Amino acid sequence: MDVLKYLEECAALVEPEIDRWLPRQIQPEVLTKAMRHLIEAGGKRLRPCLALTACEAVGGKREDAIETAAALELFHNFTLIHDDIMDHDEFRRNVKTVHVLWGEPIAIIAGDALFAKVFEAAAANASRLGMSREKTVELFNTLSRASFELCQGQALDMLFEKRNDVTEEEYMQMISGKTGALTEAATKAGALLGNASAAEIQALSRYGRLIGIAFQMQDDVLGILGKQEKFGKPIGSDIREGKKTLIIVKALDLAPGEERRVLLRAFGRSNATDEEIREAIAVLKRVGAVDYVAERARKMVAEAKMELKILPDSRAKEALLGIADFVVEREF
Amino acid sequence: MDVLKYLEECAALVEPEIDRWLPRQIQPEVLTKAMRHLIEAGGKRLRPCLALTACEAVGGKREDAIETAAALELFHNFTLIHDDIMDHDEFRRNVKTVHVLWGEPIAIIAGDALFAKVFEAAAANASRLGMSREKTVELFNTLSRASFELCQGQALDMLFEKRNDVTEEEYMQMISGKTGALTEAATKAGALLGNASAAEIQALSRYGRLIGIAFQMQDDVLGILGKQEKFGKPIGSDIREGKKTLIIVKALDLAPGEERRVLLRAFGRSNATDEEIREAIAVLKRVGAVDYVAERARKMVAEAKMELKILPDSRAKEALLGIADFVVEREF
Repeated sequence: MDVLKYLEECAALVEPEIDRWLPRQIQPEVLTKAMRHLIEAGGKRLRPCLALTACEAVGGKREDAIETAAALELFHNFTLIHDDIMDHDEFRRNVKTVHVLWGEPIAIIAGDALFAKVFEAAAANASRLGMSREKTVELFNTLSRASFELCQGQALDMLFEKRNDVTEEEYMQMISGKTGALTEAATKAGALLGNASAAEIQALSRYGRLIGIAFQMQDDVLGILGKQEKFGKPIGSDIREGKKTLIIVKALDLAPGEERRVLLRAFGRSNATDEEIREAIAVLKRVGAVDYVAERARKMVAEAKMELKILPDSRAKEALLGIADFVVEREF
Repeated sequence: MDVLKYLEECAALVEPEIDRWLPRQIQPEVLTKAMRHLIEAGGKRLRPCLALTACEAVGGKREDAIETAAALELFHNFTLIHDDIMDHDEFRRNVKTVHVLWGEPIAIIAGDALFAKVFEAAAANASRLGMSREKTVELFNTLSRASFELCQGQALDMLFEKRNDVTEEEYMQMISGKTGALTEAATKAGALLGNASAAEIQALSRYGRLIGIAFQMQDDVLGILGKQEKFGKPIGSDIREGKKTLIIVKALDLAPGEERRVLLRAFGRSNATDEEIREAIAVLKRVGAVDYVAERARKMVAEAKMELKILPDSRAKEALLGIADFVVEREF
């Protein structure tokens, strides 16, 4: 299966629904623009696609999960807008970030407003399908618990910036909240909407969590090895910003004295020269930190695929397997 | 009825429930602290009290609305934390604000995390009462639509800071979203949980909206005429920050050239002297802007009380009437 084509197919399904939840005539105009900005700048619509596909994989129709699929993309973009403020990131998806364009206050509000729409869209979905109260409540709990976990992960991320002794285990805990929680919510919500069995819900939840974590690890790898035009963010910006990615955590652990010094010379220094960044990247590769993370991400993807054994064969299942591989094979 | 005593009675009911939704052992510790900070610093618990009382006024028990009442206080504090960041406010409820104590990133996250808990608490309420899917969905829609309206109001507020030609009508639209939406959500949610008729839901929604708007107007009056120890914020800070309160909007409209100049000398200048602030306050009083706003707030409260005619006599109805009066008679 051509996964990119499949993702595009899902994106085409969900796009009008996302549009529907972001009315253009709301007041003030700047709020609509700020809410729409990153969404319109692109993105793979991975989380909506996961929800639609999980729904189909358990015997539902993709359309059954369409409002929640849109809600997940609003959710994701809410977290991106707030994260960009906190990280002082100026670019994403090759466009200027929301706070750079409209200032922090409007960016904070635009994020909050997207978050507000998440639950309204999910409520509409439950309503349309005539879901039971129990399932409706479980759908809401899935979304609200994921958002709380996400906050925990983001808070840990912020705290880690001030520490040079973050362990691999702490990193995994952080990233599980920051990225894994929402992809788990996507597949779990899709399964719920597709009327899955308890065992299917559990398997798809685990699959979602694992590929979410692997996704972030691959993101960190691309932040070092990728191409800026494809990736959409300046290569090495994680180093300048002092982000404790697993690559950095591992390198600080593995690198001998001299290499560690080269790394720390660039790390967390916003005015590090391009040469210093290049040298730091060379260290990350040389000590094996990049390979280690890429390999660990591949193992998680293999685990994620194992979870799907419980599902009957179908095009949707094939797509989920393909998406798992895509997560660690992509270059953007 | 002694309204202050009644508010304390409701607060005592809801306090353990609020506590329950803010577990102390969650990671990282700083997130719990930041989420709890303003809530533990006090507050009247007006919105929870409105929900509990509305529930009882339509024939329910106050306990039936307890999770949602707690959710409304979490919701309110989420908006306060984010607003304080945007307004660069350093004090609230006589303590330092969250972003001053822990920095903006943690403050943004703490707000988001409180918002996340809102829907989880409401879901638990619907679940416990065994509400129908229709009512569950309506409860969620009430909360999520209020939060979206709140974002619209806050965005307008931010935009107004840059303008000196805000009209009274624009101000009313802004404040209806920023303050009225959440008090309406409180009384509407209480009515829903108390199994109210459609007419009762509508009457209590209107009552909530009106007293919320009046509450904000009285807040603006207290920001000029109040006592700092009671009010918890420095008197005149709205002027220094250039906030477009209705008092300012009205004064800019009413004040003759010379008085307008005195006003604009202090308005929006963070380094205005105490003397300049005193002179500006004198102008606001002299041109009748303060009295105008106080009077308009009183009229809205009278309207709000009229809405309650539909309800049978009860202690809860008496409390709602008393709360409406309290909104414009309070000094804190």
